[in-house]
Amino acid sequence: MAENTNYEFKGWVGEDPSAAEGNMKWKTFEPKPWEETDVDIKITHSGICGSDLHTISSGWGPADYPCVVGHEIVGVAVRVGSQAEGGIKVGDVVGVGAQNDSCLGRDGPCDACDNNSEQYCSGNVGTYNSKHRNGGKSMGGYALYHRCPSHFVIKIPDGLAPEAAAPMLCGGVTVYSPLKHFGCGPGKKVGVVGVGGLGHFAVLFAKALGADEVVGISRKADKKDDALALGCDDYIATSEDDGWETKNKSRFDLIISTVSSPKVPFTGYIGMLKMDGTMVQVGAPEEALPLHAFSLIPGRRRLAGSMIGSPSDIRAMFQLAADKNVKPWIEQRPMSEANQAIIDFSAGKPRFRYVLVN
Amino acid sequence: MAENTNYEFKGWVGEDPSAAEGNMKWKTFEPKPWEETDVDIKITHSGICGSDLHTISSGWGPADYPCVVGHEIVGVAVRVGSQAEGGIKVGDVVGVGAQNDSCLGRDGPCDACDNNSEQYCSGNVGTYNSKHRNGGKSMGGYALYHRCPSHFVIKIPDGLAPEAAAPMLCGGVTVYSPLKHFGCGPGKKVGVVGVGGLGHFAVLFAKALGADEVVGISRKADKKDDALALGCDDYIATSEDDGWETKNKSRFDLIISTVSSPKVPFTGYIGMLKMDGTMVQVGAPEEALPLHAFSLIPGRRRLAGSMIGSPSDIRAMFQLAADKNVKPWIEQRPMSEANQAIIDFSAGKPRFRYVLVN
Repeated sequence: MAENTNYEFKGWVGEDPSAAEGNMKWKTFEPKPWEETDVDIKITHSGICGSDLHTISSGWGPADYPCVVGHEIVGVAVRVGSQAEGGIKVGDVVGVGAQNDSCLGRDGPCDACDNNSEQYCSGNVGTYNSKHRNGGKSMGGYALYHRCPSHFVIKIPDGLAPEAAAPMLCGGVTVYSPLKHFGCGPGKKVGVVGVGGLGHFAVLFAKALGADEVVGISRKADKKDDALALGCDDYIATSEDDGWETKNKSRFDLIISTVSSPKVPFTGYIGMLKMDGTMVQVGAPEEALPLHAFSLIPGRRRLAGSMIGSPSDIRAMFQLAADKNVKPWIEQRPMSEANQAIIDFSAGKPRFRYVLVN
Repeated sequence: MAENTNYEFKGWVGEDPSAAEGNMKWKTFEPKPWEETDVDIKITHSGICGSDLHTISSGWGPADYPCVVGHEIVGVAVRVGSQAEGGIKVGDVVGVGAQNDSCLGRDGPCDACDNNSEQYCSGNVGTYNSKHRNGGKSMGGYALYHRCPSHFVIKIPDGLAPEAAAPMLCGGVTVYSPLKHFGCGPGKKVGVVGVGGLGHFAVLFAKALGADEVVGISRKADKKDDALALGCDDYIATSEDDGWETKNKSRFDLIISTVSSPKVPFTGYIGMLKMDGTMVQVGAPEEALPLHAFSLIPGRRRLAGSMIGSPSDIRAMFQLAADKNVKPWIEQRPMSEANQAIIDFSAGKPRFRYVLVN
């Protein structure tokens, strides 16, 4: 297929913190300068992630405006550099998650890049609001086109719908990666704290990985019906079920905590771990966690962190999703309505993830 | 050898919290009622551990007076029950650590006991201030004799001096067990926070296990000479070395934290872990730890707890100590001076462990 490079990078540009209140502007932006290791993607779908709002509002520190957010990008490869890796061809349906680049050993040996854990490389380049190695700014997916180094461009397997693949690229892999890494599978019992965008993926993937039991955990009972419909075997409402800590003591091998409020019964969560169990925190409260060492010591329990997922994690997740017919709960919104969509997202309306569609 | 059971259980009895101030009384006490699975030990050596003071002062909650503390017990088996396990014979030099019993599957399957991790059994019976399954009180090692279920009586191998073995039974195995469990060995770099009783064992055992690098970490530089003499390859004084957090970022595979003050640079410690590194907390501050999730998330780092060690841990540790000629730094004190020894212990005088000798 002949490459047509006669296209314009246009998208929803944030120019100041008010962008997060529905004030993004539709305009042309400058992608990173092209390199022969890059791929250009004509975007069809772009998921909305909480990080988008934290970034574009400057909530996580001053954003580098102009800024285009969005790091759950699916589309069609329209230009593939002569030195691109991964066998990507023009016309392939591909995805890009929250990471655009890492050192990949170009600065010397790297524990993270050498071990398929590129997300932990100190040379991590985010998909937006970050600087590429060639000096260009990374610009995200609320747009018509995206340019990304090929190592971080993942083919979408047959049998997985692009609108389903998009929110998996950050929200999905952020929970898939620790589930897989910390041993979720047959014989294991898994708790999922928070039944929202990330939590709903954790339930779906824990089931797809074959866990014996998956239990939704939230403060109130109002998410119980959704949790059971997603596939949970049980549900715990910590502010409504009397004696939940005692009743669920030492129940789980693994807990994925997706909440980012420190005002949660943290010690009680850890008490639900079996001996040698691990609780993985993927939500990041800004305040210190109310953790007592004595909740970890009897039982040799662990609290771990985990951050997004590597290209190999994404590939494995996509294949699992295709094989097991994993169906995320998403709502598709026209790209033209991105400003309203982020307002609705901030109001907690999605069940459970919005995907912008060009 | 004919058994002589004509002996009296006599020791240093605490009768109220003032015992911790040097007011223990030398008198007869009642051991647990004898069972044919038990072993009686004529005590030769008994280490002093911080837990002894926390317990006998009622600092960890009201003690069940009369109370005899001490759970680093070495002596000679003088009576061995007809159903005792482990091939112990009268005359053997044996040891008992901080645990006297667990369920051992007698109440149904037990994850901990079924997996050589008896210390995490919910039916754990402590060596003192605890109740045996037959209703008797457990009485510790500041005494002439100790009675213990045989499963928790460990033979001391040839080549390991009894005065060296004693403090390993709690202080030693509390750090040996997590070092071994979390992969200390060749190719690994290990940090040890706190150069005291536990920390000095952590340095000795990390070196004996073949770690590439072992680094002592403390607030001030005043422990540096001791740390290097123990075998440390380097030393970090967190309140004196400018830029220690940056200079030591991602340096260690494993950190053993023996401190029990929450007033430590906790986030900085965790930042010294490599990707997938683990910090193990064996000290238990009563206050919450100042832990930020964002210190764990980039790098998939872990914070774990660990509690004493199992009989199989103790056996492996003793064999390592004998094979590698591990020499703890101890000071022997006469059993008759136990009251003065605990006063000196509380004042932080031992370098690094006191052992009472009958």
